[in-house]
Amino acid sequence: MAMDGYKGFLGLLVSALLVGFLSVIFTLVWVLHYREGLGWDGTALQFNWHPVLTVTGFVFIQGLAIIVYRLPWTWKCSKLLMKSIHAGLNTVAAVLAIISLVAVFNNRRANNLTNMYTLHSWIGLTDVVLYVLQLVLGFCIFLLPWAPLSLRAIAMPIHVYSGLLLFGTVIATVLMGVTEKLTSRQTTPPYNTFPPEGIFTNTLGLLIVLYGALIFWIVTRPQWKRPKEADSSLLQSNRGAAEGMEGAITMSLGGNTDKSDAELNSEAAARKRNLGLDEAGQRSTM
Amino acid sequence: MAMDGYKGFLGLLVSALLVGFLSVIFTLVWVLHYREGLGWDGTALQFNWHPVLTVTGFVFIQGLAIIVYRLPWTWKCSKLLMKSIHAGLNTVAAVLAIISLVAVFNNRRANNLTNMYTLHSWIGLTDVVLYVLQLVLGFCIFLLPWAPLSLRAIAMPIHVYSGLLLFGTVIATVLMGVTEKLTSRQTTPPYNTFPPEGIFTNTLGLLIVLYGALIFWIVTRPQWKRPKEADSSLLQSNRGAAEGMEGAITMSLGGNTDKSDAELNSEAAARKRNLGLDEAGQRSTM
Repeated sequence: MAMDGYKGFLGLLVSALLVGFLSVIFTLVWVLHYREGLGWDGTALQFNWHPVLTVTGFVFIQGLAIIVYRLPWTWKCSKLLMKSIHAGLNTVAAVLAIISLVAVFNNRRANNLTNMYTLHSWIGLTDVVLYVLQLVLGFCIFLLPWAPLSLRAIAMPIHVYSGLLLFGTVIATVLMGVTEKLTSRQTTPPYNTFPPEGIFTNTLGLLIVLYGALIFWIVTRPQWKRPKEADSSLLQSNRGAAEGMEGAITMSLGGNTDKSDAELNSEAAARKRNLGLDEAGQRSTM
Repeated sequence: MAMDGYKGFLGLLVSALLVGFLSVIFTLVWVLHYREGLGWDGTALQFNWHPVLTVTGFVFIQGLAIIVYRLPWTWKCSKLLMKSIHAGLNTVAAVLAIISLVAVFNNRRANNLTNMYTLHSWIGLTDVVLYVLQLVLGFCIFLLPWAPLSLRAIAMPIHVYSGLLLFGTVIATVLMGVTEKLTSRQTTPPYNTFPPEGIFTNTLGLLIVLYGALIFWIVTRPQWKRPKEADSSLLQSNRGAAEGMEGAITMSLGGNTDKSDAELNSEAAARKRNLGLDEAGQRSTM
């Protein structure tokens, strides 16, 4: 598939994968080497799943889910397949985030520690709740075939904005988590003596910010959007149904929702709507 | 001036101003009521200027600078004036951020405290350095008349991306700062007993995230962009020079930079370039 600035895209994609992967490795080294290790017994070993699962799922995998439509090799795949991959990766991220919450709540209950008093916990729990809400709404509106065109057109810019805002906020929450852990830790050597653990976790924080910056750059370049379905159908003749849907969306955006509602019972219309809305989605990806 | 969804814009703008202003008030109440107050004597009173100036300048004023082009009442003003206001607000934000750094470094030196060991300090200092760099580069490339069209066209998407990334990262750094202060504070009542100060600063953190979310929504809505200069010149006939510059930019983006370089010595060309590049800037605002 042809893509403007393909080499630049490839370089940034490889950098993002590398930095994201390195963030996961750094988190593992942190809990295995600098702290107590991993386990599921209510002790600090269980707590340590919290950073590992958060960075793996809520940061790395969420970032991949965000840019999955931009991979030019997938442009010949159906939009339905790509939506399923996007939803699947986000589901994995959500499950890992929820398990990471269970780990920390179990650990705190076992040690009679107070919950939910930090800014990290307030924003982090809100992130998880809104992320699951985003996933459920996204599934119902964009993946199930029943949502009317007009609703999809209205929901898409909100979906894209919420997704990127949640991603950014999750990263901020991770940075607060690192700060909290290093600042509150009573053991020696303390944070202010530049211990190896402090330098190491600060570097982890920088890596996560860099990962976020790379994902944001990749996802906001207009030239790297998945091409309109109508264009790809010139290459794949079995997807002719996608053609001519541009007008329908424009109409729908213009407030003429009655027509698309009336089309709801037709299976062919639903198929058309699916393909058509793909375009609304692409154009809304900022 | 006509604007799509004007009421929605107005509601969000008023909300952003309110939430931003409230964040500044909350920060003042925090340092004046819950902590030691303000002063410039090397003690905690001097440190307290750090959160006040950061939230006022680096969060609130930076946010205003980001959305200033979107105010429909300013669309009849020249782009040069709006650029100057954008640069001016960012300069004020940078000066306040630098004074806030002086406050914290002075306070730490007076108390023989180690500097620069936290993730907050690493990311925060990087933010300030990159923000000043962004300001200087922005001034030289977009405000001074000498930069070639081609350079402006290449630099604009980077300028917009860097600006938004810096804004987001500054907010994350503020959240780390709040976390650090509350977690490390040894005085009673401690953070984990839900003291009024803890609830209050957590709320401040939420307000700042909400302010960032509102600014990001306002600045990424395509329908709220400042209209193309060619269109506004229909309303203001004395700016006819703006018309027909679209093609020049497209050409320049296509790699034909020789022509615009050759035009450099002509004052009229410089004027045209200024107006024309406004458009490149607008279209790049995501």
